[in-house]
Amino acid sequence: MRNLNEHNITDEVVRRFTTTSSDPRVQTIMASLVKHLHAFAREVNLTEEEWFQGIEFVTRVGQKCDDKRQEFILLSDTLGLSQLVVAQNHKRPPGVTEQTVFGPFHMPGAPHLAPGANIAAGVQGEPCFVSAWVQSATGQPVAGASVDVWQADAGGLYDVQHPEWHDMKLRAVFKTDQEGRFRLRTIKPCSYPVPTDGPVGEMMRALDQNPYRPAHLHFMIQAEGYDRLITHAFVEGDPYLDSDAVFGVRSSCIGDYVRHDPGVAPDGTRLEVPFYTLDYQFVLQPLPHHS
Amino acid sequence: MRNLNEHNITDEVVRRFTTTSSDPRVQTIMASLVKHLHAFAREVNLTEEEWFQGIEFVTRVGQKCDDKRQEFILLSDTLGLSQLVVAQNHKRPPGVTEQTVFGPFHMPGAPHLAPGANIAAGVQGEPCFVSAWVQSATGQPVAGASVDVWQADAGGLYDVQHPEWHDMKLRAVFKTDQEGRFRLRTIKPCSYPVPTDGPVGEMMRALDQNPYRPAHLHFMIQAEGYDRLITHAFVEGDPYLDSDAVFGVRSSCIGDYVRHDPGVAPDGTRLEVPFYTLDYQFVLQPLPHHS
Repeated sequence: MRNLNEHNITDEVVRRFTTTSSDPRVQTIMASLVKHLHAFAREVNLTEEEWFQGIEFVTRVGQKCDDKRQEFILLSDTLGLSQLVVAQNHKRPPGVTEQTVFGPFHMPGAPHLAPGANIAAGVQGEPCFVSAWVQSATGQPVAGASVDVWQADAGGLYDVQHPEWHDMKLRAVFKTDQEGRFRLRTIKPCSYPVPTDGPVGEMMRALDQNPYRPAHLHFMIQAEGYDRLITHAFVEGDPYLDSDAVFGVRSSCIGDYVRHDPGVAPDGTRLEVPFYTLDYQFVLQPLPHHS
Repeated sequence: MRNLNEHNITDEVVRRFTTTSSDPRVQTIMASLVKHLHAFAREVNLTEEEWFQGIEFVTRVGQKCDDKRQEFILLSDTLGLSQLVVAQNHKRPPGVTEQTVFGPFHMPGAPHLAPGANIAAGVQGEPCFVSAWVQSATGQPVAGASVDVWQADAGGLYDVQHPEWHDMKLRAVFKTDQEGRFRLRTIKPCSYPVPTDGPVGEMMRALDQNPYRPAHLHFMIQAEGYDRLITHAFVEGDPYLDSDAVFGVRSSCIGDYVRHDPGVAPDGTRLEVPFYTLDYQFVLQPLPHHS
């Protein structure tokens, strides 16, 4: 076609992308991407200068990425795309724990610890005792589930963000017992900002957006016959619950972290400082062929 | 809002982006981008694996860019976005020469040459004599217009793509005379592929797309009171006119490059090889405040 103009160009791109013998799913994705990308440019009547600013922006996003930093995932997170993709791939009926963004800080190979172990050994923070149970939507305990937990420290940094820390901290794997229960000791999580020293930070400042995430523990729970649950346990009362920079807060993912005065902790030890307890419940979604 | 799900997340992102005191145009652009990006993800029911492939792809596109290569512009070109943005910013009535993509190969500071000069001195190729006139939509000659011309060599490479070439070749600036005319000697342009050694090349192979551009000369014509014309003069009969990899062909941008047997050329010299002539007309669009 040699008569392209602003009105017919979209149809022509889609026609060319979808009339070859290439993979049908690739064709479907790329045709839809082109349609929506063009619709965006038309809707805002994008100027050439704005187009070039966009080119420069995504170029800098790509060049900010290295083996420790993924600025495009951060961009996807802060545009709500990551949480949308997670949600539409893990539809959960009421009463089942909802899926949230995975985030970049999970590490494979965390230590497998015994029930009640302290994953915050040597880390400063307010002691927090977590007692949780994992069950199915019908109330059956899920025994033998693998429970990954990870979190940031009191300064908002994960262990991998501390160049001087050489071993894993604030992360571990537990197993649920016959009643579907697990427990651990840690420190109460704190709200913290996403990295704002790159182009995504510039974008958030240009939009006057809050860069903070509300305090949370991360959990990944795997058990045969259930959809793998990747979720957060947010802290009720956190000031950023309604403005999470990555749009990850869901109504079934908020827990009561209860403050206690100094005294005897759930593990029987006596603490000279205040501490918190979290009693929490995870409800797993059966996989279709098991339901 | 702490009750985000796949249905309400888009409204919440848009609400947050548009309820601050930041620049209204930035808000408009980002809100529209989010709406269309989310609509794309929903329409194709994007999976988490596909989302991650997309993240990896745009990351590699950014990391392919350097001071000589702009892979994101190439991506925009091959998705038809660049030509759409050009077209919607330079709407031209029938009879006025249409705008095309600028491309990455224009260089400022090309030599200003006398009428009829050969911009292909020392470069192999079929001789081509261009005689053109520049006029307004009402048929008035546009005298004193600045005419940048640039093109690839017979192997499909621009001078800047030849690391061993240290001076500018196949590019120059001419001025129109009192009748709005200019003429030059060059070589007939050839069709050539866009760079396919990067992630955009992988995308085009996955979509089974032609990477070739039809042969063309580039022109940029500037005259006071007229919208700057950035356009191509494509070669009628080129096999890629209907499948230009960057969707840049427009009906008013195709010229008759007429072949002649060896003999006396338009500049009076006698040639022992066949040569081409192009008689071409550019029609400029008056700027609104001059019309």
